[in-house]
Order: sequence, then structure tokens, then C-alpha cells
Amino acid sequence: MNNDFLDFRSDTVTRPTAGMLDAMLHAKVGDDVFGEDETVSALEKKLAKMFNMEAGLFCPSGTMTNQIAIKCFTQPMDEVICDQASHVYRYEGGGIAYHSGASVRLLHGERGILTPQLIEPEINEYNIHYPNSSLVVLENTVNKGGGSCYHLAQIEPIHQLCKAKGLKLHLDGARIFNALQATGDEATSYGNHFDGISVCLSKGLGAPVGSVLLSDKETIKKATKIRKAFGGGMRQAGFLAAAGIYALDHHIKRLKDDHNHAAALADALSKAHYVKSVMPVETNIVIFEVEADQANQIVNQFKAKGLLCGTTSAKTIRLVTHLDLSADMIDRAIEIILHLQG
Amino acid sequence: MNNDFLDFRSDTVTRPTAGMLDAMLHAKVGDDVFGEDETVSALEKKLAKMFNMEAGLFCPSGTMTNQIAIKCFTQPMDEVICDQASHVYRYEGGGIAYHSGASVRLLHGERGILTPQLIEPEINEYNIHYPNSSLVVLENTVNKGGGSCYHLAQIEPIHQLCKAKGLKLHLDGARIFNALQATGDEATSYGNHFDGISVCLSKGLGAPVGSVLLSDKETIKKATKIRKAFGGGMRQAGFLAAAGIYALDHHIKRLKDDHNHAAALADALSKAHYVKSVMPVETNIVIFEVEADQANQIVNQFKAKGLLCGTTSAKTIRLVTHLDLSADMIDRAIEIILHLQG
Amino acid sequence: MNNDFLDFRSDTVTRPTAGMLDAMLHAKVGDDVFGEDETVSALEKKLAKMFNMEAGLFCPSGTMTNQIAIKCFTQPMDEVICDQASHVYRYEGGGIAYHSGASVRLLHGERGILTPQLIEPEINEYNIHYPNSSLVVLENTVNKGGGSCYHLAQIEPIHQLCKAKGLKLHLDGARIFNALQATGDEATSYGNHFDGISVCLSKGLGAPVGSVLLSDKETIKKATKIRKAFGGGMRQAGFLAAAGIYALDHHIKRLKDDHNHAAALADALSKAHYVKSVMPVETNIVIFEVEADQANQIVNQFKAKGLLCGTTSAKTIRLVTHLDLSADMIDRAIEIILHLQG
Amino acid sequence: MNNDFLDFRSDTVTRPTAGMLDAMLHAKVGDDVFGEDETVSALEKKLAKMFNMEAGLFCPSGTMTNQIAIKCFTQPMDEVICDQASHVYRYEGGGIAYHSGASVRLLHGERGILTPQLIEPEINEYNIHYPNSSLVVLENTVNKGGGSCYHLAQIEPIHQLCKAKGLKLHLDGARIFNALQATGDEATSYGNHFDGISVCLSKGLGAPVGSVLLSDKETIKKATKIRKAFGGGMRQAGFLAAAGIYALDHHIKRLKDDHNHAAALADALSKAHYVKSVMPVETNIVIFEVEADQANQIVNQFKAKGLLCGTTSAKTIRLVTHLDLSADMIDRAIEIILHLQG
Repeated sequence: MNNDFLDFRSDTVTRPTAGMLDAMLHAKVGDDVFGEDETVSALEKKLAKMFNMEAGLFCPSGTMTNQIAIKCFTQPMDEVICDQASHVYRYEGGGIAYHSGASVRLLHGERGILTPQLIEPEINEYNIHYPNSSLVVLENTVNKGGGSCYHLAQIEPIHQLCKAKGLKLHLDGARIFNALQATGDEATSYGNHFDGISVCLSKGLGAPVGSVLLSDKETIKKATKIRKAFGGGMRQAGFLAAAGIYALDHHIKRLKDDHNHAAALADALSKAHYVKSVMPVETNIVIFEVEADQANQIVNQFKAKGLLCGTTSAKTIRLVTHLDLSADMIDRAIEIILHLQG
Repeated sequence: MNNDFLDFRSDTVTRPTAGMLDAMLHAKVGDDVFGEDETVSALEKKLAKMFNMEAGLFCPSGTMTNQIAIKCFTQPMDEVICDQASHVYRYEGGGIAYHSGASVRLLHGERGILTPQLIEPEINEYNIHYPNSSLVVLENTVNKGGGSCYHLAQIEPIHQLCKAKGLKLHLDGARIFNALQATGDEATSYGNHFDGISVCLSKGLGAPVGSVLLSDKETIKKATKIRKAFGGGMRQAGFLAAAGIYALDHHIKRLKDDHNHAAALADALSKAHYVKSVMPVETNIVIFEVEADQANQIVNQFKAKGLLCGTTSAKTIRLVTHLDLSADMIDRAIEIILHLQG
Repeated sequence: MNNDFLDFRSDTVTRPTAGMLDAMLHAKVGDDVFGEDETVSALEKKLAKMFNMEAGLFCPSGTMTNQIAIKCFTQPMDEVICDQASHVYRYEGGGIAYHSGASVRLLHGERGILTPQLIEPEINEYNIHYPNSSLVVLENTVNKGGGSCYHLAQIEPIHQLCKAKGLKLHLDGARIFNALQATGDEATSYGNHFDGISVCLSKGLGAPVGSVLLSDKETIKKATKIRKAFGGGMRQAGFLAAAGIYALDHHIKRLKDDHNHAAALADALSKAHYVKSVMPVETNIVIFEVEADQANQIVNQFKAKGLLCGTTSAKTIRLVTHLDLSADMIDRAIEIILHLQG
Repeated sequence: MNNDFLDFRSDTVTRPTAGMLDAMLHAKVGDDVFGEDETVSALEKKLAKMFNMEAGLFCPSGTMTNQIAIKCFTQPMDEVICDQASHVYRYEGGGIAYHSGASVRLLHGERGILTPQLIEPEINEYNIHYPNSSLVVLENTVNKGGGSCYHLAQIEPIHQLCKAKGLKLHLDGARIFNALQATGDEATSYGNHFDGISVCLSKGLGAPVGSVLLSDKETIKKATKIRKAFGGGMRQAGFLAAAGIYALDHHIKRLKDDHNHAAALADALSKAHYVKSVMPVETNIVIFEVEADQANQIVNQFKAKGLLCGTTSAKTIRLVTHLDLSADMIDRAIEIILHLQG
């Protein structure tokens, strides 16, 4: 987070609070490549229990947990089914093809939300010409969908379809706690519905570094070996894990503040003359549309006023709320939004 | 081709004519892995000259020439831009991801025909999150587009865009001679517009086996090495190449018969009560639509009458004309089409 | 084979005999990608039966059959155990790493012949740092070992070790019929000892193109899909398969002539003043040593006399006998050998 | 490091000192994926300057810096030349094949030390059958060589050879500061001799997590993109980088203590009746040989006495000294060594 600005670019820019720093300073650490860092183990166990999964694996990023999961659940020449706007496809450096040699089948969900009706016709039957469909990846919340959420009731029939067709189901849960907050669903119910879940600690939860992959014991054993080859095995990683544990203990409930802040921003934007439309706000992300090709210019005008945000296309702009943006700062942002010349 | 049937499943089912067999029998051969098969060399040179490219490489299939070209023109973590229905993406076993570690950006062209307007917004700018856009692949004619054609005038601005953005341009010319026949464009003009062209000998041209990749000398040198790793280097391949040379000498002009036959079939189909619509016929492929989920049943009814064809979806059926289907056989097929109960 | 020379460079240079050409001309063919070429099917069945395996798959080369087998029997991040001089490692374009993402553990067998004693200590125990040992590849005869042979009695304990440790065992049988001829072992006994066998038709057997991968039905199903992605699926491949069937029927017994010829050449070489040593000759390959860095010069002197051969290092030269080299031609070669100035 | 034991298993087990922890606590951090963590940037610049290279990239591990470097310097189907015992080949999960699709050429250096004489004959000339030799990797010190060192004078002719042949040269400098301490060479001289250098902070230097890849700006730009795809981009990584900076400022000179400690241990071992031989000690690693198959038993006896170490084969044992092992602890270890029953 840039100190001189109201930084709405992403919820990844947060910096540890004093309490979190203190937890890090006092962490008991060991060599986690040897499996001897007790703080890392505690974090992995804590999250696995929360989501009712057997085991967890701490990694340096959500890109790594996602890509390792995709590698665990596919073979080269397989095909991964996901939304065309999903993070695993768009923002992970082409990793599905590079790490896993797997093809993609891209769906067009409403704000990134997939349904069994969309998925089923895209599962390949056996044919030597076709990649083998082996994995469906959902994202909850959907970043490019403007923080749109799946309810568990929507996930359940997708899971049934995957089971019936022999496909695995993975969740990119970069902002899963935002989804849980917004839907009221329970984390413990997730374990029955997914073969793998990636949970990020460095977004809404405010930890500095890290994500955890959750799955069954056998998959986590496989994932641990893949993590080594990726170079994701870290030595005394407990400092980072301690921040993650602190975040789970202290930063989940407050996510509703971020959601309220996002709603307030959306309300202001809907009144601004230079805004054509605002996507529905479900969590902590606000995406709005301006005139064609004007997005960059508006972003620069915001920056000149002290508000940082980013474009998601030539005519759309994204704001993300997070724990380093207090209620006062949201008020200042609203002032800027309402008075921008545009 | 199955002798007891009118086989419209594909133009790949043709069997050598007596003249072609004679050419094969008298081919001068050598060990082509050592570069000593003069018939293979003659075929490669002949096609390179036809398309005004520097060099050619004979391979066992069009899948191999396409996949080798994609490997030549990309790096792992790059992105290939092509139509969502293109053969390189749909029917080559997920090879883009497997062989090249490259991601795909899938466009939705009208009957598979891309335009600069569709391509340009999908070229990634530099960003560590994005795959690097490095290659555009066109298909001419477009198999899944019902044999739709690009005119060179449509290709030229795509080529200009690629040059301006630093992307390579490859042509999957599995049925390029059908396109040339239909459009009246000259093969020699193609060399200026593509970095690589794959030409199939085993489809409309009627040779038993093989495709040739055309490009500049440096790329063909690189491709020869990749072909070895793919196991596509063949020893006395001149027998197959001789059939290819014969096909180029004798089977190009007659493609207009196949196109006329396809038009006649389409005309008959448009009158059939069980047909909802027929895609425009530009070359030797006819795709028509029936009631939802009826395609398999109609195909079976055709088969019972002695006509073989295949579905391309639950409600669409494809017929392909070729040199083993004479005017008489087309007449018989039309009779079957018109009298099918449906 | 170059007509003006005695061509001892390789047994891959042979050209079809009149009988083989006739068999090719009369082959019944179909579209093998659709599984409809009856001559290809007949060849695959014939070889599977000979080696007591369930099924076969015809491919354009031995490199392809080997690399597909390695892909079938490994996962990315696995490790293949083979001799450091083996063809799959040295001469297949780095395919083990490229196609399969698999590491290699390289052994130093006596003339390329491995033993359980060499293999066992190199099998990795489970450890996140190590690749997973999953496949052993033998070559019989060993090309770089100067045509050295395994007897089945040597293979059996290697097979036992692999079974005990959960590894697959593949045979690169590029010259397996030479080995069978030399050892007196039965082809049918091989089926019990290997998970996959690659048999070449274009070396000692004299067919123009092709190899067949033999394995169980499930592996061949998997291999057929991989062959498609490799671009190794050929349309009317029956012309090539017919030559293979002819070779199996007519060219196996005569391999003993090639072996006798090789022995005669070795005898002559052992008397030549410019030869330091001749490797023991077991089959149709003769490798001899000259003074350091003199190999290229000697090869050129041979060429000037009308005899073609190649170096295998700066001081070693290889001659290969085959069916296009008659007894008379061997006599002429011996004359050249004995009278070369050196 | 296990508190109840003298832990000689590896120099990776160290835990931050109070001073290092304080530096971590006060680190200024930002989102390093956005390039905004000033402490990470400071570490990268500091190390680049020390080694006279243009730029640096902080990664979670030395496996990642090595594997990214290999990816930067090779193409799929290339070949990497390294010692058969090198870490990049043996202990990085088969990553050379998996991440880079590259083959390996394995040399047998004396205690892992390569020479131009060993390397030159193993560089492949151009041939479609061979992988393209494109990279040599050295390790300094050599872990499996018992901490053996290259002097810069030995590296220089290897660098000349690589330049002459068009190969890149990468240094796995997991323990480069130990080598510099032992040889008296200057870090600044390294920049002229390598295309890439990987420096670990979590071994002898005692930082908890991380390695830095050093190279030219263009390679580091490429590496940054690859790091993203690997999932190695971390958000507020400055906490870890601060420990690295502290280590560079405070823990380099003291490495000579570790070397002295290792020499003292070796001296004791050479007097122990159960030890057959001790490898020469050059830095902080001691490898000694016991009777065949006795290594595990001896390691267990040591453990029972409170000394942790590990085997490197069935008859060899490794001890590593580091900053958490004080002079007193070394004395206790010597007592254990001298009095072990064996």
C-alpha cells in the first residue's frame, strides 16, 4: 500500500497490523522442508479443520496452490473446464498449459458463475482427437465477476455432475472468506464438495504472504513433492504462517466492513456523471463502466486526487476495499468520486 | 473408404487411384532421415515453389505439421490466438498445451473466420500475469465452419496486424486447395502472408498419407529437428511422397467437381423435411441442422440406406465430398436424402 | 542406400525388394485414424502374437514407439533408468525430457548391457527431493554397444527386480530380431518380461517405414491417443504395413547372413594395420577403434574407395551389415579394408 | 534446528538471531508483485552490486532460483551439462526435465568439480538426433563433493569454453559465501564469469527463507515473469528480505568459524575407529565413510547421543556446521565422535 494514497488497487496491498507483527516475532519456527516448522503445521491443520478437509499445504502464493492443485488433478493432454475470466486461466502466466500440459475449455458464466447446464455439454466424450476432461475449477468470489459469489447450493449440483462424470472439482478460494461472509455459508460444508481448495491469506485477511492448499492426505503428499519441484518449499516459514494464523483469528469477521464500504462506493459511483453503470456489489470489489476507451483517463484523474485504482478493460475500472482502508478513508474516497470532473 | 457405402464421413477416406499407385511403385527412394530420399525432396520443393515459400518438410500428418509449426513459433508460457472451433485447438489431442506449453486465446469468428477487429483486443500487452501473445493460427477452409473460406484480401490485414504486433501467423491449410479453388486466389500469393503453412495431401488431394509444412529455411531446419523428436522422421518415405506429387499434378483442378457435388447435396438437403437449415456451402463440406438431439438418429437412418456421414454436434450433421465419390454416387446420395423418412 | 557405394552406414538405408514392392502395391487399405486399415491391423496383430503381447500400434518410427511407451509408463517428474549410451536417451532429440517431463538415471553397463546389480542402487526411495523412479528401458541389441545382446536369462532377473520395486520395463527392440537370431531365444517368451516392446521394421527387416509398439490392451489404447497428439496417426498406412508383413515373412531367417558378414568384416579389420581393436561382434554391427582423432580421416579414405561408414566417436568407426549388402559386396568391402593405406 | 540436539543435518536449520528478528520487525514492506516492496528491492540491489551483476530477483528458495535460471537459459529439447551429483539434477525433483523440457549430460568431476577437459567432448555438435547443448551449471561449493570449492581460476577457462561454444554458464551458489571465504576470491569478480548466479540466504548466512537470482536486466525481466507462473511472487516479502540484508551485513565473516569447526570435526573423525576415511574438508561440510551398509546404524547411534546428522549413501555420512552450532557445541560433538562405540 502506498502511504500517500487511498489504495483501492487490490486487497493484496495490505500491511501487517501491530498485533500481527507481534505474532510473527514470537513464532516458533523450524525447517519446514524437513516438516519441522510447528507454526506452519499449526496453520495447515487449523485451515484443514475449518474447511473439513484432511490436510493442508502452505505455499508462497495462491498462484502456486492453484497450479499445484491443477497438476495434482490432471495429466498432460487433459482438459480443464473453467470460466473464461477465471484467475487460473487469465492471470497465472499460462500456467495450466506450462506446468500441467493441459488444455482449457472456456465457459462464459454470468459474472463468472458456472452452472451444471454450462459445464455438462463441454465435457469431452472419449475420442482420440479430444483432450480428456478431468477437472473443473470454480472461483469464489469471482475476481473478474466483480466479487460475485457462489452459494453452496449452486456448488452442490456442479459437484454432483463432476462425480457422475469422473471429474475432479477444485476451488480457487482466493477470496473464499468474503464469499462465506456474504452468503452465510459455513466453511465446514466446503470439504464435502471439493477435491481441492486454495485459500489465500494475503488478500482480505491481511497476512503478508501465503496461501494454503487443502485436500485429502494423498493429494497433499503429492502436492508436497510438486511444491518442492516448484521451489515453493521454504525453510523457517513459520514467521509467515504466524501472520496467517493471526489473520484467521482476527480478520474474518471484519470483512463485512469491507463489503459495506464497497457498497457505499458503488452507491457514490452510481451517482457520478462519468459512470455508465456499476456492476452489482456482492463483496469487496466494485467494477464500473465508463465511456469506451476512457478508463485509463479516469484512473489517472483519480490518481491526481489521491485515489489509486486500476482498469480491467478499456472501459471498466475496479476498486477493492480492504483492512487498510478505514471508514474515514472510504468517506474521502466517496468525496473524490462525487466531485471528479470525469 | 468403406466399399459397401457412399462414404461422406471425410475426405480422408480416399484410396489411391491406379495412376497414383503406379507413381508410388516407381518412386526413387532413400533414407529421408539422412536427407537422401529424392522423391520426398522433390515433393517438398514442389510445394514450397507453389506457395512461394523457401522450404518444405514432409510429415506423417497435418496434426504433426501444425503442432511442429506451433512449437517453432512459440515458447512455453506464450499464448496462441485462434478460433474456438479450430482444428489445432479442438482435434489435435490438446497438443498446443502438451507439445508447446502454450496457452490459447479463443475467438468466436463467424463460421470460424477471424478478423483483425476480433484479434487485436485479445493480444496481451506485457504483464507478468499474462501469457505472451506470439502466434495467430488461421484455418482455410474452416472445417467446423462448414468449409468456409478466407479470401486473401481478408488475410492481408490480419497479416499486417501480426507484423505490427510482433506475432507470427500460421495457416492450417488442411484444405487450402479447396479454398484456392473456391476463391480463385493464387497459391503463390500465400508465401508473403504467412510464417508457416501446413498443406495436407491426404484430404481432397487423395494421397494416402502425409502433410507438408512450408516456411523459411531457418524455421524448416528447426522443424526438422522437432520432427525427429516427435518420431516423424521416416526412412524410405518416397513412396508416400510420390503419391503426393501425383496428387498435386492430377487432383487439384477436379476439386471444383467436389464443390459442385456439395452444392447439389445442400440443395437436396434444403428440400428435406427433417432438415431445419443448411449452412452455406463454399467448398466440399455440407453441414446441416436437424431437430435438437436428432442428429445421431438421422445419421443411423442414412447408414441403413447405405450413406455414411457423421455428426458435429447433437443437432448437426456433416457430409464431405471427395474424389472417390463420383457424379453417379452423388445422384444416389441425393435420392437417399430426398426419400429419407427422418 | 547410395547406389554407387557399398553402404555400411546403417541398416536403415535398405530399399524394398521386388517382392516387398508387390506386396505394397496390392495392400488393402483404409483410414487407419478411423481404425479401418485392415493391413495395418493385420501387422499389429501378427507382431503382437509373435511376441505374446495383447496388442500393437503401428507408428512412423521407432523413436515414436519408444517415446510413446515412455510417456505411457511415466508421469512428469518421474525418472527413467537406462544405459548412458541408450538410443532413447542419446538419439531421440531429448524426447524423454521434452515429451514426458521425466528425468534420467544413467547407468554404465558393459557394452550397454544392464544388470539388476547396476539398477537396484539407482532406484530412488521416496523423498520429496527425488524424481520417482518408474521405468527401466533396455535396448536389445545395443546399437552403441556394437550390437551386443541380452539373453532372456539376463532379462528375467531385471524383470523380477522391476516387479518387486513397482517399476515398468520397456524394450527398445529396434534390432530385436538380430538378438533373437544370435541368442536363439524365442520371441514368444518376451511377452512375459516386458510392459512394452518397440519393434522396428525398417532396420534389419528391410521395410521402408515403421515400427510397432506392443503392450497390453489398455496401454495400447492410451498409446493410440498419444500417437494422435504426436501426429503419428496416418491415413492409408496399409502400404507401409504390407511391407512390414512381407518383411516378417521373408527377412527374418536371413539375418544370420548379416551376422556372418559382420564377423567376416571384423576378422578383416582385426588384421588391418590402422585398426587398434575391434569390439566383439555378436550381430550385424562392427565397431572398431583407430588412433585418437583418426576416425574421420579413415572414414573419408573408405569413402574414396567406395565404402560408406560412420564414426561413433573421434576414434571409433561403425559398420552395419544388412540385406542390401550381398556376399559379393562383403568380399569387395573386405578387399578395401585389407588394402586401405590408413 | 531441533533444540534438544546438536543438529548437524544441514545449515538450513538455523533460526534467526535476535538482531535478525529485529531487522525483520522493522522492515518497510509493500506489494512485491507490484514491485513496491522497498526492502526486497534493496536486497536484490545489494546482492547484484556485491557480485557485479545488473539485477537480482528474490525467490522463496534456491530450487526456484536455479530452476528459473535453467528455464531462462534453455529451450525444450536442449541439454544441460552438469556434474552427476549436482543439486540441480539430484535434489530438485527432476525439475530440469519437468520445468524446462531439457535433457541432461552428466559428467563425473573429481568431488563434483568440472573442468573444460571434461566438458568440451560432451558438447553436442548440431545433429537432428541430439539435444542442443545450451547450458553448463556449476555448483560452488559442491554439496555432494563434501563442500569442495572452485577457485575463480578454475572457473575462468570453463567460462571461456562456454563463450566459444555459445553456451550459457550458471552458478548454483547455494554456499557461494563459503567458497569465497575458503578461496579468498572476490564476489565482484563473479559477475564477469556467469550468466546467472543463484545465492542462498537460508544456508550458512542464517536467514529464514529465500534465495536471489542474479543476472543481466533482460534475463531478470524474463525470470520475473517465470517466477509469477511458478507462484513464487510474494506480496509483503520484505520481512524475509530484511533478514537477508541483515545476514549479508553480519554473517559472512563468521563463516570461517564454521570452516574451522568442520576441520576440527574431521580431525576427530579421522581418529575414530569406525571411520574408514574422511573426505578433505574445504568448507563447512564433512563427509566420511564407514563400513558398507553401516551408515544408517552409525547415524542412529549418534542420534542416541544427541547428535543429528544424515547419510549420503549406504556407507557415507554428512555433517554440516553453521551459526547455530557454537564452539562449545562443537566440543561436545567431538566428544561424542571420539567415544562412540560404532
